[in-house]
Amino acid sequence: MLTNLEHLGLAVHDLAAATELYTRLLGVAPYKREHVASEAVDTVFFQVGGSKIELLAGTSPSSAITRFLEKKPEGIHHVAFEVDDIRAEMARLRAEGFTLLNEEPKRGADNKLVCFVHPKSAAGVLVELCQSIPESAA
Amino acid sequence: MLTNLEHLGLAVHDLAAATELYTRLLGVAPYKREHVASEAVDTVFFQVGGSKIELLAGTSPSSAITRFLEKKPEGIHHVAFEVDDIRAEMARLRAEGFTLLNEEPKRGADNKLVCFVHPKSAAGVLVELCQSIPESAA
Repeated sequence: MLTNLEHLGLAVHDLAAATELYTRLLGVAPYKREHVASEAVDTVFFQVGGSKIELLAGTSPSSAITRFLEKKPEGIHHVAFEVDDIRAEMARLRAEGFTLLNEEPKRGADNKLVCFVHPKSAAGVLVELCQSIPESAA
Repeated sequence: MLTNLEHLGLAVHDLAAATELYTRLLGVAPYKREHVASEAVDTVFFQVGGSKIELLAGTSPSSAITRFLEKKPEGIHHVAFEVDDIRAEMARLRAEGFTLLNEEPKRGADNKLVCFVHPKSAAGVLVELCQSIPESAA
């Protein structure tokens, strides 16, 4: 099962402007900025209670975020749920008929193993499963 | 400040089908169903860690959810953040230049006072502030 709404990922055009906007909206400063080379994105994270808001801006034309923003306005890109055992959850969801976008867990931002579920199989929502990688293994 | 990502609201066409789908996706059964006459919606709630997933289906052509789904595909309709004092947060956000969609807090689903922030002032996200109403005042 999915144990927490770990973060919401928002696709934005201008990361500096969105960071300033979300700092004022949430009433809290970001706690982390991270470039994820494998996804060609720059990210900024805010903590809100037990969940995070992740702002994402593409850093190359091939970035999934850049391509998303070519077709859609700024807004929510994905919803990430925490899991304790990503491989077990991937197997459970495959058995339930969900379409996964990667066959194996991959390394995501914020020191996580991640897997995406196709939005067509989740009522229009791009769902991410994420499992924290222990510090010792990072 | 916003203290928790209280819930994600998802607009769906077929509440029964979406409830079945999200039960399988999240690996947990819904804990509440509620009709909100003032908003003309039927809702189904799932608890995931400290946050909720709220499925919403319109029950009249004038429902905001019905109108949303006339223009957009199924998916995330709003993101709700918990606040301790909704009137204080509304004043803070007004002073920060955000556009609020209601001047006074209104009664929402799940025993809350709610206020919406215009998505044009929040990078495309329809943000809800919500404050729990004490049981004794419900």
